[in-house]
Amino acid sequence: MGGTNIKAGIVDMSGRIIARNAMPTGAGRDYQLIIDDMAAQVKALLDESGVSLEEVDSIGIGVPGTVDYRTGKVIYCTNLFWNEVPLGEKFRAIFNKPIYAENDATVAGLGESLFGSTKGVRNSVFLTLGTGVGGGIIINNRVYSGSHGAGSEIGHMIMGENFYDCNCGNNGCLETFASATAMIKYVQKRIAEDCTTTSILSEADGKPENINAKMIFDAAQTGDAIALETVDRMVKYLAAGIISIYNVLDPERIAIGGGVSLAGQYLLDKLKHKVNSMTMVKKIHYGDIVLAELGNEAGIIGAAHLGRQEDTFFK
Amino acid sequence: MGGTNIKAGIVDMSGRIIARNAMPTGAGRDYQLIIDDMAAQVKALLDESGVSLEEVDSIGIGVPGTVDYRTGKVIYCTNLFWNEVPLGEKFRAIFNKPIYAENDATVAGLGESLFGSTKGVRNSVFLTLGTGVGGGIIINNRVYSGSHGAGSEIGHMIMGENFYDCNCGNNGCLETFASATAMIKYVQKRIAEDCTTTSILSEADGKPENINAKMIFDAAQTGDAIALETVDRMVKYLAAGIISIYNVLDPERIAIGGGVSLAGQYLLDKLKHKVNSMTMVKKIHYGDIVLAELGNEAGIIGAAHLGRQEDTFFK
Repeated sequence: MGGTNIKAGIVDMSGRIIARNAMPTGAGRDYQLIIDDMAAQVKALLDESGVSLEEVDSIGIGVPGTVDYRTGKVIYCTNLFWNEVPLGEKFRAIFNKPIYAENDATVAGLGESLFGSTKGVRNSVFLTLGTGVGGGIIINNRVYSGSHGAGSEIGHMIMGENFYDCNCGNNGCLETFASATAMIKYVQKRIAEDCTTTSILSEADGKPENINAKMIFDAAQTGDAIALETVDRMVKYLAAGIISIYNVLDPERIAIGGGVSLAGQYLLDKLKHKVNSMTMVKKIHYGDIVLAELGNEAGIIGAAHLGRQEDTFFK
Repeated sequence: MGGTNIKAGIVDMSGRIIARNAMPTGAGRDYQLIIDDMAAQVKALLDESGVSLEEVDSIGIGVPGTVDYRTGKVIYCTNLFWNEVPLGEKFRAIFNKPIYAENDATVAGLGESLFGSTKGVRNSVFLTLGTGVGGGIIINNRVYSGSHGAGSEIGHMIMGENFYDCNCGNNGCLETFASATAMIKYVQKRIAEDCTTTSILSEADGKPENINAKMIFDAAQTGDAIALETVDRMVKYLAAGIISIYNVLDPERIAIGGGVSLAGQYLLDKLKHKVNSMTMVKKIHYGDIVLAELGNEAGIIGAAHLGRQEDTFFK
């Protein structure tokens, strides 16, 4: 589920998406209407692909918000204006199948853990850097999202003071330093202050509101001073966030996904260099930092495989 | 094990310490000498208490540093100047018993989880606020210390910029804001800057180097401005640290121990007030914040019960 579109897929046990469709979310409508549309979307997908409901083991849903995974109740979801919506219960009544719901970054992390960049390691963290910063924690090959489903919100670790507040109400959240939004806001601030001589601005046709993260990374790689300053600031805080993850969770691997990760090796090299200079116990080979592998498919694949978690310790 | 003393105890299955002794650590000596002394200490304790080695199920050791829990090797321990010391192996050779070693805050967290303030909850975090800030993470009733034994170092989450660097080499670690040391350094800095009119200074006989955390809390409760400023600054960062813990680990309960926690309800009230104003999802009842219950005994009790963890998922 996203604020703009809802994508569905039929996923097999090997993690292959064998059919998919999408529909506009129509966020802002009554939740019952959206859930009805989602159910119709699932039925249409089954019809189109010739898969019967009997062949479906379970249905998993990734939600851009906080979910009580025990019941599938969406506690809070900003983009859809949802508060305490019984998504799991409604879906269960419609399909009479095991229904699972989890945070969207968490299901993407599960997808990467089962079939992608963090496959084969027991403890891993997935970070998705986009409009915000999302997190997925895998402990002992199982999703960990805390006692109330409110954990793994790594983008809301508090990292320091920032010049604007986070949507969550606090100041200094990781996502206000390390998301695409954070980078764009920082460049816009620097332009407004004094620095109109950045090539980013020409790329954006002179309009600060047109700036995106790709423009910033591209300009940094050609040596633009404001772009470099912005990337280095982002890397500094993301590195500090990863050090905090090392020092709290000490995972075997950390995967970076989301739009910002499209900066690829350039970002990864800077990030690893900074992180390596900050590790606490030099004799420990802390978790490898890698790029995520499944892209936008991670969420669908992971959501569909939530059902495999049924035997977990944590649920 | 501590930098000054090493305390030993015989602990029964109900968490009762039935005998105990202590010896000076003699830090700085060759590790083999310290380990020999520890072994003699354990044998003396058994002799004195009339307990035979046959009655001992396992031996657990809490180390003020980073331990590879799979082998009992101490990777790094500042206070004892230890680097890659095969503590577990040596003890195993001497006693021919299951030997477990873990970080000292982690074993204290386990003690609190089995018999104290966090008993009965599945996921909990223990924070000990003293010279530094230590952490113990319990997930699913089991110690979690990460893939390399380097996790649960919650005092080294990076929280913002500070006026002095942490011993770990980074700037802005939680322990440089929320430990007794942090509070003392901040008061000393304020006195050096301009504020000599604090009652803390008279309590310390006019000597800034004599200031301790109790003096600061006592002065704050009588309305001393510098003391209040110092306590509020500490509470601000500790609250931010707890918000980060909520947003990453979402435990059912967080217990606060260590010398600073002796400020008791006064500290707890301020802390809860601040934390409550900062939680992300208002409809969630996040983990309760409580005072630890076992005091200095938590470490001995928890270390002795590490052996009960043998069947865990994580080891």
